[in-house]
Parts: sequence; structure tokens; C-alpha cells
Amino acid sequence: MDFTSDNASGVAPEILAAFADVNHGAAAAYGDDEVSARARAAMSDLFEREVATFFVASGSAANGLALAALVPPYGTIFAHEEAHIHVDECAAPEFFSGGAKIIPLPGAGGKIDAGALELAIRKFPRGVVHRPQPGALSVTQASEFGTVYTPKELEELIALAKAGGMPVHMDGARFANAIVGSGLTPAEASWKLGVDVLSFGATKNGGMGSEAVVFFEPEMAGDFQFRQKRAGHVFSKGRFPAAQFEAYLKDGLWLKLASHANEQARRLADGLKTAGYGDPSWPVDANEIFVALPFDVIDALVKKGAQFHKWPIPPENGRQLVRLVTSFQTRSPEIDGFLEVLKSL
Amino acid sequence: MDFTSDNASGVAPEILAAFADVNHGAAAAYGDDEVSARARAAMSDLFEREVATFFVASGSAANGLALAALVPPYGTIFAHEEAHIHVDECAAPEFFSGGAKIIPLPGAGGKIDAGALELAIRKFPRGVVHRPQPGALSVTQASEFGTVYTPKELEELIALAKAGGMPVHMDGARFANAIVGSGLTPAEASWKLGVDVLSFGATKNGGMGSEAVVFFEPEMAGDFQFRQKRAGHVFSKGRFPAAQFEAYLKDGLWLKLASHANEQARRLADGLKTAGYGDPSWPVDANEIFVALPFDVIDALVKKGAQFHKWPIPPENGRQLVRLVTSFQTRSPEIDGFLEVLKSL
Amino acid sequence: MDFTSDNASGVAPEILAAFADVNHGAAAAYGDDEVSARARAAMSDLFEREVATFFVASGSAANGLALAALVPPYGTIFAHEEAHIHVDECAAPEFFSGGAKIIPLPGAGGKIDAGALELAIRKFPRGVVHRPQPGALSVTQASEFGTVYTPKELEELIALAKAGGMPVHMDGARFANAIVGSGLTPAEASWKLGVDVLSFGATKNGGMGSEAVVFFEPEMAGDFQFRQKRAGHVFSKGRFPAAQFEAYLKDGLWLKLASHANEQARRLADGLKTAGYGDPSWPVDANEIFVALPFDVIDALVKKGAQFHKWPIPPENGRQLVRLVTSFQTRSPEIDGFLEVLKSL
Amino acid sequence: MDFTSDNASGVAPEILAAFADVNHGAAAAYGDDEVSARARAAMSDLFEREVATFFVASGSAANGLALAALVPPYGTIFAHEEAHIHVDECAAPEFFSGGAKIIPLPGAGGKIDAGALELAIRKFPRGVVHRPQPGALSVTQASEFGTVYTPKELEELIALAKAGGMPVHMDGARFANAIVGSGLTPAEASWKLGVDVLSFGATKNGGMGSEAVVFFEPEMAGDFQFRQKRAGHVFSKGRFPAAQFEAYLKDGLWLKLASHANEQARRLADGLKTAGYGDPSWPVDANEIFVALPFDVIDALVKKGAQFHKWPIPPENGRQLVRLVTSFQTRSPEIDGFLEVLKSL
Repeated sequence: MDFTSDNASGVAPEILAAFADVNHGAAAAYGDDEVSARARAAMSDLFEREVATFFVASGSAANGLALAALVPPYGTIFAHEEAHIHVDECAAPEFFSGGAKIIPLPGAGGKIDAGALELAIRKFPRGVVHRPQPGALSVTQASEFGTVYTPKELEELIALAKAGGMPVHMDGARFANAIVGSGLTPAEASWKLGVDVLSFGATKNGGMGSEAVVFFEPEMAGDFQFRQKRAGHVFSKGRFPAAQFEAYLKDGLWLKLASHANEQARRLADGLKTAGYGDPSWPVDANEIFVALPFDVIDALVKKGAQFHKWPIPPENGRQLVRLVTSFQTRSPEIDGFLEVLKSL
Repeated sequence: MDFTSDNASGVAPEILAAFADVNHGAAAAYGDDEVSARARAAMSDLFEREVATFFVASGSAANGLALAALVPPYGTIFAHEEAHIHVDECAAPEFFSGGAKIIPLPGAGGKIDAGALELAIRKFPRGVVHRPQPGALSVTQASEFGTVYTPKELEELIALAKAGGMPVHMDGARFANAIVGSGLTPAEASWKLGVDVLSFGATKNGGMGSEAVVFFEPEMAGDFQFRQKRAGHVFSKGRFPAAQFEAYLKDGLWLKLASHANEQARRLADGLKTAGYGDPSWPVDANEIFVALPFDVIDALVKKGAQFHKWPIPPENGRQLVRLVTSFQTRSPEIDGFLEVLKSL
Repeated sequence: MDFTSDNASGVAPEILAAFADVNHGAAAAYGDDEVSARARAAMSDLFEREVATFFVASGSAANGLALAALVPPYGTIFAHEEAHIHVDECAAPEFFSGGAKIIPLPGAGGKIDAGALELAIRKFPRGVVHRPQPGALSVTQASEFGTVYTPKELEELIALAKAGGMPVHMDGARFANAIVGSGLTPAEASWKLGVDVLSFGATKNGGMGSEAVVFFEPEMAGDFQFRQKRAGHVFSKGRFPAAQFEAYLKDGLWLKLASHANEQARRLADGLKTAGYGDPSWPVDANEIFVALPFDVIDALVKKGAQFHKWPIPPENGRQLVRLVTSFQTRSPEIDGFLEVLKSL
Repeated sequence: MDFTSDNASGVAPEILAAFADVNHGAAAAYGDDEVSARARAAMSDLFEREVATFFVASGSAANGLALAALVPPYGTIFAHEEAHIHVDECAAPEFFSGGAKIIPLPGAGGKIDAGALELAIRKFPRGVVHRPQPGALSVTQASEFGTVYTPKELEELIALAKAGGMPVHMDGARFANAIVGSGLTPAEASWKLGVDVLSFGATKNGGMGSEAVVFFEPEMAGDFQFRQKRAGHVFSKGRFPAAQFEAYLKDGLWLKLASHANEQARRLADGLKTAGYGDPSWPVDANEIFVALPFDVIDALVKKGAQFHKWPIPPENGRQLVRLVTSFQTRSPEIDGFLEVLKSL
């Protein structure tokens, strides 16, 4: 009953097997090998266009390097006030970009409020020397709170960014979970909406430690590789990070794994409702559930071995907000066990 | 016959097997798991003292983060003019440290000349506001040219650094190759000589992509973890980078692998001499050979499928300096084949 | 009728005269001269304790360097969302600190809301590796909106910062305007309230281009001078920036100049009320007035030669917020002329 | 008898007078005023083409900001190993550029050796991801050792830089001293030789604290103003730094001041030779003399009140290298007094 984070899960067998498959003697280093070439080609296939793909070792690196390619050191990055890049990466975007400024924006359920974005963009006009200059919009899909932007919601935000002359970054650490059930192709969920660069996560969804930065206009990558290198994210044995993605994309493994996670989240949410704990705080669009539970329920669950994260905000009305995350590895008995504890109370 | 680089080799079977061993369901993320704890403990055992160990994904990250922990943004880093940190990391130390300055020093065979170090330290006196301030000494063991500092050589350099109030970093991307045959324990080869922090490499010697930063005085690590995080080098599934080191250190695997590489280099060097190409440019103390070969010999070798690196300096007397690197994976037929081509000329 | 900014004013005659007074042949460079020593001593006298004082050439440099001395590159800076350091310095604090993150906070009239500060501090707990770490609180006195924190208001904010282990920076670009009429001594208005470092402005109040960074605990200055030097803010002819402060502090010139500015602002505010435009948006505690005026009034004023800044927020109810700033140089006929236009409408 | 540095001199009366001339009431802030416009126009006139000019407060700022506009954060800056940007600015170029790497080059008399530059450029080839990338060439005119590059010498160096795709920066802290007696116009001494951006100093030659960054192709300035702002080098009362340059350039004041300094240096050098101390270490092309003097001579000079800088290198043959700098303010009796001491020994 470990619902702490999808980060706590292991590696999918298919991905582990891929390492052995590519481990045959010498290969060109630093991404000049055949496996890396195949994985990059697979990414272009997936997105139905020629893309520029770079493999790095963590989501913070993917986001930071992607944003550094888009934003000058005195630029702004408009993001949700709960975005991973703002709250959970120890100021990585500021580091990679050389000092850019994240402008945190409010919005229900982890989605940026369009009105707030519009006002914020206006506050930092282009060309005024005193003001940090327009940099980029960064949206998180699925969001920190497990919600998924609709295409229309994204279009509205992206239109504002583009009107301000800014490119758009999507933090897709849980892109797989966002795609599943959306009815959209990867292309429709990204560049066809105006996204310029995607941090495409594999780690949370069965990878070992590999994230792809995907530029939909290859020339926008600019000097990415030099920034990647000086950050220690160009890997000598590049075939192994690449092999993770090759396996991840092959035969839709990434979607299969994410479907499982999302379905388990759905079962858990349904069970919570049935057990009388009402609707979660936000729609369960992906693999995360936020729900406010009474203290005694939390205690009982913990006592029975359930693990999850208490959200660091003050309790209200005797209830504490908790986060439950499912993964590709969440087993049905874990869900059942959790729900049984609830029923037993 | 691939002598391009030890970076081109694959992953040792023992290390690959370790992934499967630790891939059982959920585990605490970000290094709070049992595998990481065991690997850190193994490092303390190896060095016969309590050390602070951090696992990162590349040598550039290890070096850059280690140096950033030691040196202020306006500090100096004294290093050999051919050191990896100066020439081959796309200015990573400058990035991680926020602008520190590498002072490149001459010295035969990739080893810093003590007299040059002494003069350079004097040039940047502590407390003079105009001058970059004393930061750290960085030595590479084994060096870029495959030589290994003797303890006495290191003691002399380190004494100069310490007299200048500076800590000492050792770039040990090939620490295993330097230890093998030195007759020294890891402790004797590092902190007992005055080294404060070691970039301890596994990748070039059978790892997949894992390097350890080892602080011999744990408190010198300071705020390392925050710098590591904001550089995207704290990994959610931390048990896997750690498992590489656990396997690497277990039963002396790291030394066994390096012994093989060094022996193959020795055989190759001996064969070159027997074939009439004289002594290499520098002593073959580890797994690298630098030798100046006639153009026609180079052509013949390449024609037969040999791969190696032509050193980017102008040819002299009709000969081009080349670098031959062996690895844990170099097979004897590769050496034999190479030498046979030489004999056939 | 120039109410654009106190930055548009010239230099006070006493300060201009000081240049000639100290311009006698050679003097030690880089602040080792007698004038600099006297100006630093005058600062210690003013604050009734031994302080460490550094003279720089702009407010952005003073703020950025002061904050860089307090905050690690992955640290937080809690500030008002309209603070100069957040909005008007082109990301200077991020630059000087190497990537620190400003956490913008709401609060009426440019003063940080204590509840918002408390929540924000809680959001970034010390020791959690994912989170930017507690850095500093920065308060602006007088604020961007011309209000002045009461001692009690500051005490509440500072207590929260100190409870979180954070030092406190005060942006005193208009410190003189804040002191005048407060009934407080400089000491009472700064370190006695818990302020650790003050950006003490002279430029807006009769200086030519000189700001002092004052550390009330000299050892907190740490490596300030090296950061100052590498930012190009250690001046060879240091006696001239110092002479500005010597003249500024002598015989209370700084307070005399600010009194004049504040009195003119008071007259202007009274005149606006008398003319039927009601109370300004926020109390006129210093030398700035924010008032929403009808479009036709604005047009009439501009036509008659009045200059002022339209605040970049959308108009409401046919009125546009404008900012009127007085300075040490504002002449009474300018106020009279402005008010006459109002009366004539 | 102060020969410590031209930095120790005061401000030329014409420049001091200019402050009063422009100190009339309010003026547009941040360089949008008439004085700034006039000073910028004067610079275009001087260089016989439309240039982009920015006024900053120190030579370190001028150099650092100029280089940051030319060089990426992972770029190289090729400079003399004794260049001010390498040795005397506390790593300012690294700070302003976000981590660029200075490649120090040897060369007699402070002038870069062309062969060394050629080899160094070859060492860091464009497009190789591991290597810091070609950034810029920086030449110092007059050099740190008081020599002046001939046009031919500069042409050779600049041709190498341009062949490597690099722009050229000239550190002209003593540009005036280099021009005087060269028979060249400012245009001939800069852009006509291929210089792209010039740090044009006034401070050492009668200014108070104003240096101009001059881009000969205005579009190369790029985002200079934003970098300037976030470094705290955009000044609210911009007319005063600009006024220094207006006065400096007016009626050839800058050349008149530098002529005086150079002539005094010439007299001093001649006197040293006459007194039997031989030729200085390097040609006295500007206002600096480097000469090795016996210890007893140094002691006698110091006893009589002479001030100068002992160069921080070990003495040889009982002689210590000293530096003697003259300025626009050096009076003939100072020279005479110095030479009299020599004669009296």
C-alpha cells in the first residue's frame, strides 16, 4: 500500500531487458551510437514530425535545460505557483538559465488561471529595461494536482504567451498519464496546441532515470547540447538512457503502463467516494488523488501499513489533505487493502 | 580493435545484474532507500573512515559539484592545462561554481609541475580584492595522459595547496586504473595524502553511468545536496545509481576490471616497442597509451578496422600522436590483431 | 511640474561641492583613502554602532550585492510582489546571487502581509532538498507605494523571518523619506528592529549616483568586497562616491532634503483632496502619491506641462492610477501650478 | 612623487565643471536625457561611424559586460595571461558572462603571442560538445605593461580570431594613452583593424568613474542594456556619467590629458637611462614604466617619499621589478625629484 509517489516504483521489466539487449561490446560514446539514433527516430515517429530529442537523467535537468534554451538570464518564466519547477526543484531553472525569474501564478487544481497570466504578462513589458523580459510560459501536464488541462484551456494560455512573443514549455513528467484517456495523439497534445518544447518523462512511469527533452522545431534547440554537456547531462554511454526510451515507446509500452496507473487511481477514487469520503479535491484526471481525510482515518491507514504524503498545508475542519499516487506497479490488492481499511472504520 | 575510449565499452555483467537484484517493488525515493544506504556504507568501509558519498550521473557532474562545494564563485581552481575539467567539460566547473576560474598549469605527462603551481598560487594572493581568490587544487589520477602521480609527487603539490589554505580535489574518473598496481590502499591513495574530495569514477570501468563524490571530511560536503538537486543530479530512483556502486565495490570487482584494462594496455605497449615503435610518449601507468605513429602505419591500422583517437596537435617528423585506450572489456584478440598489423608492415 | 520620479532630479549643491573639496592630487585608490574612511566612520556614528559600509553606484547593485551576501544561490528571498527587487531591477538579485528565487508576497499599499509571509515561509522548509532553502526577508522602507512600515509592522514580519532562521534586508532607496517624520533615529528604524543589512540610498535624494550597503553586524558582510569587485562596483577613485555620502550625512543634509520632498508631497496630497479628488490610494507617508484621476484631468494636466507616471494597470471607472513623486528639488510653484490646473477644471 | 597608478589621480577640472553645467533641475532618467544623447553622438563622431555607446561606472564592468554580450556562458575568451580581465578583476568576466572561460596566453611585454593564440584556438574547436566553444579575443591597448600593439601586430591576432569565427574586444582602459603618438585616428586604431567592441576608459585619465562600452556594429550590442541593468550599471541620473564623456571628448581633452601623462613617462624613462639604470623591461609606449631597480635604490626612493608598485614576482640579481605610472596630473617636479634621488646615489 505505497501511495507515496510514482517515483518510489521500480523499473518496468521491458526497460530492464533493454539494457541487456544493447550491452554488446563497444559503441560510439556520447549519443553517437545506433541505439540513440533509433530512440531519437522513434520520437520523431511518435510526434509525426522531425523533432530534436535529448536524453537527460532527471526531470529537473529536463525542465531546467529546456527553459535555459528558451529564456535569457534576465527573462521571466510564467508558471503555476505549485509547479514543480517553482516549488520542487531547488531553484534548478534559475541555475540552468543563469538567473531567470519564475513568476508564480494562481489557478484552481494546479492549472494556471488565464486572467492571472494575462495580468502578469502585462506587468513585465518587452523592452522596458527595468523589467525582467518576457521569457516563456511553462505548463505542467498532467498538473501537480493530477488534473489534466483540456485542449481549450491550453489554447487559451498558449495564445496569451504567443501574443507576448513567448515560446511554450510543457513539463510532461507525467505526459503519459495525461495522454491516456484524453483521446489525443501525442502530436495533438503538444505541438499542435502550440507547445514548443516538451520535457517528456519516463522515470515516474517505469523508467530507471531517463527523461527526454523534445524540441518540435529542431532549430529552437539552439545550443542545447553545450548547455547539456556543461551541466553533466551528456552521458558517455548514451545508449543506455536511449535504450530506456526505445523500450518505453515500443509497442505503446508507455501508454500501457500509464493506463494501469490511471485505472488504479480511478478505482481508488471511486472507492473513497463509496466509502463516504466524497469527491477528491480536484478531478482525478491522471494518477494522483488529493483528498482531505479525518485524522483518525489517516492514523488507521498508516497503522495498517498504508504510505502516502500529507500535503504541507494546515488542516481544516479536522481533516488533513493527503496525496495518493498510483503507478504502473500499483497492484490491485494494494487498492483493495486501502479501501478495506476505510470500510472497517 | 576499438581503442577509442574506455567510455565506448559496455556495462559489466555484475553491474547489470545488480539492477534486477534491487528492482523489487517500491522503495523510498531520492536516496533514502536501503540500497543507497548500503552503497554509502561500502564507501566508508573502502576508505577506512566515515565519508560522505553522493552519487551523480557523470564525471563532469561529479567534478563540477565537488569543486562548487569547495570554491567560491570568484575562486581559482589550479589544474593541469590538459585536465578534463579545463578542456573536456564544456566549462562545467565554471557553471557549477557560478564563475570560478581555472588556472591552467603546465607539466610533463599530464602531471602538474610543482614549480608552476607555486608561482601560480603566488600570483593570486588571498585578500587582494582585485584577484580571484584561492580556491582549490585539482589533480587527475590517473592523469589525462595515462600517467599516475607517485605519492611523493602528490604530497609536494598538496603541500603547496594546503600552505595556500586550499583544499584538494582529485578527479578519479580512472581512480581504479591508478590504484591497480600502485600497491596503495584507496585510503593511502587519497585522504592519507591530503585529498579532501574525490570524484570516484565507475562509468569508464564497467558502470553504466554512475560516479561518486566522496568527501573524506563529511562536514566539507556543506550544502552539496542542494547544489546536486538544483543541477538535476539527485535521482528519484536512487537505488539504481547506488546499486552500480554496490556491485562495483563488492568483492573487489572495480579492481579486477581495472587490472584487466591495465594489463591489456601493458601488452599493447610492449608489443609496440617490440614492433619497433619505441617507448610511448609517457609511461603507461594505467590504461592509456600515447604514441606517435607514422601516417602509413595509422592508415594501415585504420584499414584493418582499428579505432583510436588522433590527438589534436600538429604532426611532427611525419608522425601523428595517437591515443590508445583499453578497457575492462578489451579482448586479447583485439590486442593481437593490432600488433599483427604492425608486424605485417 | 515634473513629478515623474525623484530620480529625475539633479544633484544637491552641497554634494557637488564635495567633489571639488576632495579633488586634490593623488589619493589611495579603491577605498583606501581618507575620504572613504571618514564616510565609513560617519555611517557608524549615524547608526550608533560599528557598521561595515560599502559604497556602490546604484540601488540595484546595493540590493543585489546585499542579498547575495545573505542568500545562497538556491535560496529564497521573500519580498513584496511590487518590490523594486522583484519588478524593477531586471532580475538583478537573481544575477548577483547566482540564481536565488524571489517569492513575491501580497500586501496592501506595498507592505508585505504578515499572514502571507508566514504561509510562504512554511512552504519552503529548511532541509528539504527539493525546496529552495530559506534565504532572507527583504522589506522596502519607504515602500514602492510611498507608505512607511510602522515599527510594529516591521517587528511582526522580522519576527517571522528570524523564527525561520533568516536575516533581514531593508531596501532603503528612500530611507531618508521614511525616517523623516517617523520620530525614529536611524538606529531605531533599522538594526534595533532586527534589520541586518540596509541598502541606504542617496541618489534619489540629492546624490549623483552613490548608495551605501550597511551591514550592522560587520562580520555578516562576509566576502562582500569580492562580490562587489567582480560586479564592477569597487571604484578606483573611491573618494568621490564616499564624498557624496560624507556630504549627505553632514549636518543632517539627508534629512533636510527628504523633509522638503515629503512636505511637498503632503501639500500636493492636501491640494488633491481639497480639489475634490479624495484621498490617495495609500497614505502619503513619504514623497509619493498614488491617485486615480479621470482621463480628462490627466489630459489637462499633461497639456499644461505636468509630467508623471501612469501606473501600468487597467483603468477603473474612467480613472487611471497615476504616481506623483516629489523630490528635494521640487519647487512650490510646481505644486501650485499643478493644483491650479485641477481647480480650473 | 606618486607613481602608484593613474587610478590614484583626481578628476580633471574640465570634467568636474561639466557636472555643474548639466545640473539644472529635472532631466529624464536612465540615459533618456539630452546630455546622454549628446555624449553618444560625440562618440559616433569620434569614431566616424554610427556606434552604440553605453556608459558604465568601472573598467571591470565595461569589460565584463562587453564580453558577456559577445560570448556564451560556455565560451572561451582568449587573452594575455597578464590581462586585467584575467588577473585583476576578481573573475568579473566569468561573473558577467555566466561562466565563460578565459584562456590565458603568453607573449612578451603584455602582448599576446600570435603563435600561442593559433594553437589555443585550435585546442577548442567549434562544434565539439566537450570543449568550451570559441568566444572572443580580448586585446588590451595599451597593454598591462605599458606597451602598445602596432596595427600589424593587431591585424595578425585579429585575423586569427576572425578565422575562428570570433569577435574581438579591446580593453581600452588606457586607449587614450595608446592613441597619443600612434599617429592613428580612433577609427584606425579600433574598428578599422577589426575590433568589434571597445571598453573606452576615461577614469584613469581624468574622469571620476565613467567608462564607455562602444559597439562598432550597433546590432552586436544585442541585449546589452538588459545585462547592464541587472548588473546595476544603468544609472538613474545618467546625465552625469555621460557628462564626463562629453567633456572628455570635447576639444580633444582626452588626448591632451594622455599626452601629458605619456610625456612625463617618457621623461622619467629617459632620466632612468641617463642615471644608468638602462632601458626599461619593455618599451615605454604609453604611461607605464617597468624597470628592475636595486634594493638600495628602491629604499632610497621610498625614503624620499616616492610611491610606486613593486611587481609581485621574485627579485633577480638583487633587483626588484617596479612599476611607475604617470597620469594627466603628474607634475614635472615629481619627475625631477625622483630623478634627483637617483642621481644622488
